[in-house]
Amino acid sequence: MSANGQTNGKQPSNQHTTPSVTTGPLPGSSKIYQPSLLYPGLKVAMREIAVHPTAGEPPVRVYDPSGPYTDPNEPIDIQKGLKRIRAGWAEARGDVESYVGRDVKPEDNGFAKGDRLVPEFPVKHQPLRAKDGKAITQIAYARAGIITPEMEYVAIRENLGREVLAGNVERDGEAFGASIPDHVTAEFVRDEIARGRAIIPNNVNHPECEPMIIGRNFLVKINANIGNSAVTSSMAEEVDKMVWATRWGADTVMDLSTGRNIHNIREWIVRNSPVPIGTVPLYQALEKVNGIAEDLSWGVFRDTLIEQAEQGVDYFTIHAGIRLHHVPLTVDRVTGIVSRGGSIMAKWCLHHHKESFLYEHFADICDIMRAYDVSFSLGDGLRPGSIADANDAAQFAELETLGELTKIAWEKDCQVIIEGPGHVPMHKIKENMEKQLKECDEAPFYTLGPLTTDIAPGYDHITSGIGAAMIGWFGTSMLCYVTPKEHLGLPNRDDVKTGVITYKIAAHAADLAKGHPAAKLRDDAMSRARFEFRWEDQFNLGLDPETARSFHDETLPAAAHKVAHFCSMCGPKFCSMRISHDIRAEAQKEGLAAMAEKFREGGELYLPLENQQVDSTITGSSIDS
Amino acid sequence: MSANGQTNGKQPSNQHTTPSVTTGPLPGSSKIYQPSLLYPGLKVAMREIAVHPTAGEPPVRVYDPSGPYTDPNEPIDIQKGLKRIRAGWAEARGDVESYVGRDVKPEDNGFAKGDRLVPEFPVKHQPLRAKDGKAITQIAYARAGIITPEMEYVAIRENLGREVLAGNVERDGEAFGASIPDHVTAEFVRDEIARGRAIIPNNVNHPECEPMIIGRNFLVKINANIGNSAVTSSMAEEVDKMVWATRWGADTVMDLSTGRNIHNIREWIVRNSPVPIGTVPLYQALEKVNGIAEDLSWGVFRDTLIEQAEQGVDYFTIHAGIRLHHVPLTVDRVTGIVSRGGSIMAKWCLHHHKESFLYEHFADICDIMRAYDVSFSLGDGLRPGSIADANDAAQFAELETLGELTKIAWEKDCQVIIEGPGHVPMHKIKENMEKQLKECDEAPFYTLGPLTTDIAPGYDHITSGIGAAMIGWFGTSMLCYVTPKEHLGLPNRDDVKTGVITYKIAAHAADLAKGHPAAKLRDDAMSRARFEFRWEDQFNLGLDPETARSFHDETLPAAAHKVAHFCSMCGPKFCSMRISHDIRAEAQKEGLAAMAEKFREGGELYLPLENQQVDSTITGSSIDS
Repeated sequence: MSANGQTNGKQPSNQHTTPSVTTGPLPGSSKIYQPSLLYPGLKVAMREIAVHPTAGEPPVRVYDPSGPYTDPNEPIDIQKGLKRIRAGWAEARGDVESYVGRDVKPEDNGFAKGDRLVPEFPVKHQPLRAKDGKAITQIAYARAGIITPEMEYVAIRENLGREVLAGNVERDGEAFGASIPDHVTAEFVRDEIARGRAIIPNNVNHPECEPMIIGRNFLVKINANIGNSAVTSSMAEEVDKMVWATRWGADTVMDLSTGRNIHNIREWIVRNSPVPIGTVPLYQALEKVNGIAEDLSWGVFRDTLIEQAEQGVDYFTIHAGIRLHHVPLTVDRVTGIVSRGGSIMAKWCLHHHKESFLYEHFADICDIMRAYDVSFSLGDGLRPGSIADANDAAQFAELETLGELTKIAWEKDCQVIIEGPGHVPMHKIKENMEKQLKECDEAPFYTLGPLTTDIAPGYDHITSGIGAAMIGWFGTSMLCYVTPKEHLGLPNRDDVKTGVITYKIAAHAADLAKGHPAAKLRDDAMSRARFEFRWEDQFNLGLDPETARSFHDETLPAAAHKVAHFCSMCGPKFCSMRISHDIRAEAQKEGLAAMAEKFREGGELYLPLENQQVDSTITGSSIDS
Repeated sequence: MSANGQTNGKQPSNQHTTPSVTTGPLPGSSKIYQPSLLYPGLKVAMREIAVHPTAGEPPVRVYDPSGPYTDPNEPIDIQKGLKRIRAGWAEARGDVESYVGRDVKPEDNGFAKGDRLVPEFPVKHQPLRAKDGKAITQIAYARAGIITPEMEYVAIRENLGREVLAGNVERDGEAFGASIPDHVTAEFVRDEIARGRAIIPNNVNHPECEPMIIGRNFLVKINANIGNSAVTSSMAEEVDKMVWATRWGADTVMDLSTGRNIHNIREWIVRNSPVPIGTVPLYQALEKVNGIAEDLSWGVFRDTLIEQAEQGVDYFTIHAGIRLHHVPLTVDRVTGIVSRGGSIMAKWCLHHHKESFLYEHFADICDIMRAYDVSFSLGDGLRPGSIADANDAAQFAELETLGELTKIAWEKDCQVIIEGPGHVPMHKIKENMEKQLKECDEAPFYTLGPLTTDIAPGYDHITSGIGAAMIGWFGTSMLCYVTPKEHLGLPNRDDVKTGVITYKIAAHAADLAKGHPAAKLRDDAMSRARFEFRWEDQFNLGLDPETARSFHDETLPAAAHKVAHFCSMCGPKFCSMRISHDIRAEAQKEGLAAMAEKFREGGELYLPLENQQVDSTITGSSIDS
């Protein structure tokens, strides 16, 4: 519970605590809603950060995935779930039907019983799915020339801030061939989705989700991984982590649970998540066969896909790219196969001496996913887990297969993103981006880092933040975070926050370098606040206002310090910004520039101001009086 | 005090505590000394990290700036200072004389008195300086064709690890035109110094310092800033921070004190520092004129240079690059002038209507510095302090001036490095490197970050770690760290450690990307330890063994867990590395590869191992028995 939060839990009757989550706005922020003209009633959530009135500046609008939790006007009840804001949108298209979904079976929760079984989410919704074998995906509609409310929503969302520019768009960046528009229209969104260059991951059964877009020509997005393991964590902690992650800026969340209660935990998460939820269905399938990889089969996998699609999972990681002949390519690797799903499928392939059921049934998987609009995240099971293995034959062989699978998925009107590495030294990062664009026809790239060195366990959010910023700049659409706990253990909520902030930094640094027209607005507002010693504004404009304030207050806690023209780094005499103000005050800008020009041209040393006639219209006074 | 440290302090008679510092080796590490053949008696400090015997691997040698503090065989007494290992080296060249140095004056310590005056360091050494107007700098000797013991020392130091390669040097990197040799000879060092492409910062009056080299063709180095301010900190804290910073990997330390007791604090630091110490003499000069910038003069500055040179400061930041006509170029900046020294000199120039005394007396400054071998760090007073100001006219105008000054300094046989930005978005970083190489004839570049976005106060070690890794890769020789406290307050020792680890990551990522032949050895040793579940080795091979271990132990603290083939991220069933081992065990490599080849060529599905004849010379057993 943070200082800003409220508790919304009630005491349960068994040992499982109702989750309590953090609510309330970030300091200085207000939730706002930008309405749509195209779809009346549709309103897009964002937030704005007010600055001190003396600044004479409008509030700064920032992208905001935190959902209703940070809107003080929205009551939160975890037992009920979020408002189903997209309810009716899919139905209105006439292509879906409601039906009686699959029952929850004991194996869905790893055979947990009694006190060990997480309670079911209290509300049961009937799932929707496509009628008559139609594809109800955003890409199908986009190709049909239709602008859906989801497309309109993300166009408004991606545009935030740009209206401030009022047409004065200065493009300053290097986008390596990306096509970032000055202004995002819903038509542009439609076109990007139709050509497969972007996706809106939005299962029809997750109507609580605020639509968002993943694509090279939009803001770089980040994902936070949560989920329990057999060793630790619980439903309450995982729901809290999901809300916490989105509070700090996670654009999607993957529930990578591998312990018990996978189904029930996921239901609590999805019903309460304002952002798309991703999973790796293979994990639950493995739990259903008691952890024996060789016992996996298409049947149990298919059942799991439907189970999770009915719940509303928005994207599935599918490791269909691992071919049997790839596996020997990993034998000489330093760190073998580091992907859970990849290692499981490799083991299966070897044991059964055939191509995986994921590969062989790929078209069937497409048929299921297109019926719910679950997007593919084509898994990089053979990503490198060490600097030594970066860009090796195994990795790129799988990437080529992912390219083939992308084409199949697109033929079936499925939305697709491509997962990527891993551990890659800086000089090998660009090659990854270039190969992926080529092999996968510009499908969005979604990397894990990459980590740029192996030598810093405990700090892998930083080793990977470096690689993530770079590959985001080169064109990667979404960056999967890494926390300080990487290689060491399951992240707790502090680790989740650190990972999210680090990846927001990487994504924003990438947006800036790509020349995204609105990215710089926030940096400039921050820098003006800093230069003008508007301390509260400096804190509130930052990614983590609470930490910034508490760091400042460690040495200068008094209220008077918040208007001080220095901090404890330099003290009053040495603060360069304060001295900069003295400099500007001492010399009128016009007088200064003119004098310096004269000086450069070899004229007289310029005269002290007291001897000059100063234009009183500039200063509003006359110095020579 | 860390858990590994011992206290070496005694209770003083006044309020100033004798510093207690952290001593003892890092976990798993042993200090070793590599002897010289060229200079008998000369031995170069480094450390090696032992791995578990089952690995069958030699210890991993790593570069180590922590000095005698981490050598359990070296007694530490802060009151006495470190061993003066270079005593006699300068004298042996016959070019120096001992003389009675300048007295310490009250203004040297900001007129502190009584209890507020930090005690003088208990031992007074007579300073050395050049005889007869000679230049006693490493560059003078290098140009004369002489290989000094300092050059020999750094050649051995830079070579560490390469002997393991035993001639099998695989060069894999992109060095952007740098010339990193397979093997570093003392002659190569001499040549690099003679041409100004590297420096060994080593004042003759700092014989406690272990020589190190800063240059593009050597390991990327990092600097940690310490020093009090008027608001906070003390001599004891600053000495502790210096030792703490070098423990974690700082290659040089700058004492940027701006409060009281600058002289006496510095003496305690220099006498106890195993690494070069840098300062900005302008700060102390400003204190001597009571903080009134306009009252600075060549006289008080000259006096301060000599005072600090006699103490043994190894490099001075000199803001001689600020020209009067540059100052108007900063008037429209968002964050003005963010360098303390830069703002002070700009203010002085404006007030006096002339070029600064630093610029006008530059040749005189050279004469002083060459007499002690203090190196120049030509200050970037006009570096950008915001994304908005990056690469602007003010910044590059000063860089051009620094290029001119470099030539003058070289003519005087002074060693030179060039300071750089600042705040620079990723797409503008390369231009900085290219311009600096050109304007300054490849003098080493020494940047502060750069920060790649302004929006994350509290996390500026990360925003800047990204830029630092990149600019290090492009050719920057030393990276000045940034801590989480940047923009908010003076760093404490935790911040110092975080900053150092972050910058070690950036520097090492750069070495890897440049294709430094020995960099990858540590990553590979780490990855092998990780893959083999040698948990202790994984911790000990890392930059911060204590944090890695404690993160692991948060969820799996028992001794048995240190041999577990999983951690709490995935648990036993889902650990991909464990499953990778299963895969390798299940299929003999030779059989596997051959079968997969047959499969690719369209042959029969390969047969289960039970049906194959396996070469028992490989397995040591016969499966078909």
